Amino acid sequence: MLDTFKNTINNYALLKRKDRLILGISGGPDSIYMLHKFLEIKEEHKLNLVCAHFNHGLRPEADDEEKFVKKICKDNGLKCISEKKNVAEFFQGDSLEQTARLLRYDFFLKVSRQEKIKKLALAHHKDDLVETVLIRMLRGSGLRGLRGFLPLSKYKGLTVIRPLIETNKKDIVDWLKKQKISYCIDKSNLEDKFLRNKVRLKLLPFLKEFNPNVAENLYNLAANLSLDYDFIYKVSLDNFNSLKRGETKKGIKLDLEGLKILPPAILNNVLRIAIEETKGNVRRLESRHLKEIIDLIMYRPTASIVHLPDLLVKKEPDFLIISIP
Amino acid sequence: MLDTFKNTINNYALLKRKDRLILGISGGPDSIYMLHKFLEIKEEHKLNLVCAHFNHGLRPEADDEEKFVKKICKDNGLKCISEKKNVAEFFQGDSLEQTARLLRYDFFLKVSRQEKIKKLALAHHKDDLVETVLIRMLRGSGLRGLRGFLPLSKYKGLTVIRPLIETNKKDIVDWLKKQKISYCIDKSNLEDKFLRNKVRLKLLPFLKEFNPNVAENLYNLAANLSLDYDFIYKVSLDNFNSLKRGETKKGIKLDLEGLKILPPAILNNVLRIAIEETKGNVRRLESRHLKEIIDLIMYRPTASIVHLPDLLVKKEPDFLIISIP
Repeated sequence: MLDTFKNTINNYALLKRKDRLILGISGGPDSIYMLHKFLEIKEEHKLNLVCAHFNHGLRPEADDEEKFVKKICKDNGLKCISEKKNVAEFFQGDSLEQTARLLRYDFFLKVSRQEKIKKLALAHHKDDLVETVLIRMLRGSGLRGLRGFLPLSKYKGLTVIRPLIETNKKDIVDWLKKQKISYCIDKSNLEDKFLRNKVRLKLLPFLKEFNPNVAENLYNLAANLSLDYDFIYKVSLDNFNSLKRGETKKGIKLDLEGLKILPPAILNNVLRIAIEETKGNVRRLESRHLKEIIDLIMYRPTASIVHLPDLLVKKEPDFLIISIP
Repeated sequence: MLDTFKNTINNYALLKRKDRLILGISGGPDSIYMLHKFLEIKEEHKLNLVCAHFNHGLRPEADDEEKFVKKICKDNGLKCISEKKNVAEFFQGDSLEQTARLLRYDFFLKVSRQEKIKKLALAHHKDDLVETVLIRMLRGSGLRGLRGFLPLSKYKGLTVIRPLIETNKKDIVDWLKKQKISYCIDKSNLEDKFLRNKVRLKLLPFLKEFNPNVAENLYNLAANLSLDYDFIYKVSLDNFNSLKRGETKKGIKLDLEGLKILPPAILNNVLRIAIEETKGNVRRLESRHLKEIIDLIMYRPTASIVHLPDLLVKKEPDFLIISIP
């Protein structure tokens, strides 16, 4: 039988020989499967593996799960770094899942600095991707969001790989069962998990009644949109760099006339890139905000200002100034 | 109240003064609404309107509907051209809906030639668009398909406008009721209508339980993807024209080395454009076919041939030849 895990690693060139990797291990079936698949190829690729477990402190069994992960690592001679943080304490109005994700990534970044390892492997699989695409579609997303997540991406200098992106959940569970490998049952009741469960257990089966291939179609859709986005992003980044007229700590200056003549799709993404450079992220940025900035660029008088969440955009005679208020 | 019909016409510059238009009128609520909205602005824009009704001959009441449309046109002093064709007789293995659509468009093209009118207005509305996006998503589509249909497009030299694209079905039905205007009840049982009804009556309400704004989100998605596609298509067309090395009646010759260095998203669309130029359409072209052509370009030996439905693609030392077998 074809080994999807190895195939994915080859298809997307996720590993090189003697690679040093952090594996994000929650203890659930997906990450335990990933851990064992990495153990299978560890010698062949001369990999250096460090496991990282983040204890969200949200459920009674969280501490047992931490112990479980530590034990597996010890049994397999792998270093394991874990940290416990009571996510609920950090939760501030955003979704709990969003807070948990940020703290988890902060932890991975800390491990990356400590261990001087620049690559992180996460256990998101094909079903996760299809669910993510549907969730993004329901919530309202564009080309960028509909890609779901990627086999290979960057997060603040960290290379994130997802070697299970072409593997079905069913194959993961079947394999673990066949190998008699135990794992923690994920009873997570995080908000995002709740919606995700509804999408998995109700929406997807419902869609399969319309077309039994819908999951495969959505997977292919995400992969194809990803290529389209790559191209648009590259052109946008080139344009951003050539229209940038200086940068202070307070913001970014863009050539106004240059912005006005960009094709709409490129203008959208140049603005997104500029905002990401200014704020460090594009959280809370909605498509109606971009529309308002474009209206400012095209039609409003000089000296007009648009106030957006954590963002101030001003039209000067020759420049658009994007800054943090 | 804002008049969505007039707004859409302005937003997308669908009309000019003294425009000459064919209105596609089935007799159902949507096209009857469109007809009356055009009558409202006829004098102001000095429009010349000709109604075109295609009788598919598929249902017992089809002849009554034809009479109904003719009477409305007569009552309003409009020329009406109708044609009856028994669609079932022309049906050859494709979907019945596909056959009906082709024959209907052939009829519109004939009217266009006869009347020397180059613009056709169709009554597709906002709910139709959302349903189309969902159907395309279920069936497996990419950027191009997920746009749904457009406010302004071309079909074989005919400019097709859809002035109801921003109007909700509910507003159409409410208006007709308030104005006490009668219309035919569409009992169509065409295959596509069947899936469409299921999407409308079951899938959309189901999705609205997840997010009450889902229809609006899908509408915005289609509009945004449309901008992304416009850009990618334009770049692809430029590349196609610069890589084309001649064209015979039998096919198109493209520069092989030039194709090899295109970004994946652009290569996909250059091939699609070349196939459309060769065959006159991209029907039956699937994404796995494009993948196979790309594999031919990148990896297979010279003189290799790929056989696809109604299409032959050959790799020569310096060229890719796309032809009809």
